[in-house]
Amino acid sequence: MSEIITLAHGSGGKLTHNLIKDVFAKHLANDILLQGDDAAGIELTGGRFAFTTDSFVISPIFFKGGDIGKLAVCGTVNDLAAAGAKPLYLTCGFIIEEGLLLAELERIVESMGETAKECGVKIVAGDTKVVQRGAADKVFINTSGIGIISGGINVSGANAKAGDKIIITGPIGDHGCSILLEREMLNIGAEIKSDCAPLNLLVENILNVAPNIHALRDPTRGGLATTLNEIASQSNVGIRLFEDKIPVRDEVQGVCELLGMDPLYLANEGKMIIIAPESSVDAILEVVKQDRYGVGCCVIGEVVSSSPKRVTMKTITGGSRVVDMLVGDQLPRIC
Amino acid sequence: MSEIITLAHGSGGKLTHNLIKDVFAKHLANDILLQGDDAAGIELTGGRFAFTTDSFVISPIFFKGGDIGKLAVCGTVNDLAAAGAKPLYLTCGFIIEEGLLLAELERIVESMGETAKECGVKIVAGDTKVVQRGAADKVFINTSGIGIISGGINVSGANAKAGDKIIITGPIGDHGCSILLEREMLNIGAEIKSDCAPLNLLVENILNVAPNIHALRDPTRGGLATTLNEIASQSNVGIRLFEDKIPVRDEVQGVCELLGMDPLYLANEGKMIIIAPESSVDAILEVVKQDRYGVGCCVIGEVVSSSPKRVTMKTITGGSRVVDMLVGDQLPRIC
Repeated sequence: MSEIITLAHGSGGKLTHNLIKDVFAKHLANDILLQGDDAAGIELTGGRFAFTTDSFVISPIFFKGGDIGKLAVCGTVNDLAAAGAKPLYLTCGFIIEEGLLLAELERIVESMGETAKECGVKIVAGDTKVVQRGAADKVFINTSGIGIISGGINVSGANAKAGDKIIITGPIGDHGCSILLEREMLNIGAEIKSDCAPLNLLVENILNVAPNIHALRDPTRGGLATTLNEIASQSNVGIRLFEDKIPVRDEVQGVCELLGMDPLYLANEGKMIIIAPESSVDAILEVVKQDRYGVGCCVIGEVVSSSPKRVTMKTITGGSRVVDMLVGDQLPRIC
Repeated sequence: MSEIITLAHGSGGKLTHNLIKDVFAKHLANDILLQGDDAAGIELTGGRFAFTTDSFVISPIFFKGGDIGKLAVCGTVNDLAAAGAKPLYLTCGFIIEEGLLLAELERIVESMGETAKECGVKIVAGDTKVVQRGAADKVFINTSGIGIISGGINVSGANAKAGDKIIITGPIGDHGCSILLEREMLNIGAEIKSDCAPLNLLVENILNVAPNIHALRDPTRGGLATTLNEIASQSNVGIRLFEDKIPVRDEVQGVCELLGMDPLYLANEGKMIIIAPESSVDAILEVVKQDRYGVGCCVIGEVVSSSPKRVTMKTITGGSRVVDMLVGDQLPRIC
């Protein structure tokens, strides 16, 4: 095989078939993917399912704590988990810029395979397009996924209720901060890496002890602030945060202060917001703390009936301020 | 709203939400999409399903006979139909280059909505990313889809059997030829337009009269020749084509002769290859001919036990030649 991706790899002809065999099938193989038809045949029991899609355009494609392949699997798995679903099957669509090193593509696909294995999901169908130099930036990946929602589970951004507590599974801003440092090649000595991680097993364990959870969502693009604004709006409730409870690593806080960023708006790729009745909070925290991806979880706020569709924060100094949705773009191509 | 897409439209913040409301929800609205969670909740009965994905990077994004939006819906719907499935739900993921005209995006999304309506499918989840100028070329769209396969249907590229007949639903090469002319701005007076069309209702009607069909596949990238090579290989059979039976419009044949292209390798976006036992052929042709997308259908070849994994063609002059899979890339970014 040649050492770089050429337009012919996207032709649908011989080189496409070689690429599928030598790279994709090698690292993603399972009984369904290997059928080789244009659509995967899957068996599903009847019931309620979650179906979602996400495209990943992150730059750089390799970063501390992950790469675009790991991110593409985690991102869609986490969206399914946030719907209260157990992820089952993913598809992946690659758009590759001519000239990408084949070794880089293989590293990405290998990472997808490893992450899918950790999540217990199968990648069952894929597609590869190649565009000429300058028509894309290295590689973009779309993943779509389907997962099954157990009976009795009903989580939605529209279900938050006054009196609910808001839990975050760990410190915020790691992913956004890490990408910012990589991209700007700022060597400020801080050991910050992306929190990119699959949260489906964590969520499964949470739902086992607290099936009455109202809402789950992973605060990616736009960060915690934007995600909570979405939920406040969908549920027509107010959300009150306590600044002193929001976990932010010292290194992340330091970088944010240096660069004038707000960790509330930085993307996370391995955190989940959990909104649940107060009676379930202790059981949830106990489960989350036992998970490798739940270290540092805590209650950061509550749902209130006043100021519907608005997020406010009780500040460390004792004041109160409105926390708006992100306006503009703090950091493009963060995922 | 601003008149061009900016990076902030992809931030996940306010402008993203406005874009979703003013463009995507406007043209794609249905009960499930409007729930507004990160994953769509869908109800499925138990059974066998087809799940597939495709990314579309065609240039130009508007062309005679369609646009990238129509193509993105048809492409995935046709892949599901080719699995013998009735398409139910699609997702769509947009990667947009900063600077795309908002009016162009809206035209594309409107076209997706119209095509989805024609197909009877719902677009239930979406994602939008924006990359800086020069990091993509106008817009790329991924669509993924799920469809249900009725009991008793078992179509696969691995199921072709010696004695089967090969039917094509109409003349080949229209899409590839049309894009070639648009891209090269060749004004040679030929009225050629893309055949881009959704074939799910046609396939549903075919399966009603001939549930024993062995294989279906839409010959897109790589054209008829590459697709039949895939099937010959998957089924471990030989395929024999009759050159004088293969329908090609005179205009397409003329352009191909002028430019040294072979219509066998040109992409189609509204044609289906049907491989079925001889006993079903008349019933299939009768149904296909009644469909607006099946005018010009005919038997073009047969499956044989000799020369397994190979496609041969009896030429007009009476000779026989091997028809290989596409090598290299006849025309990049054709879909």
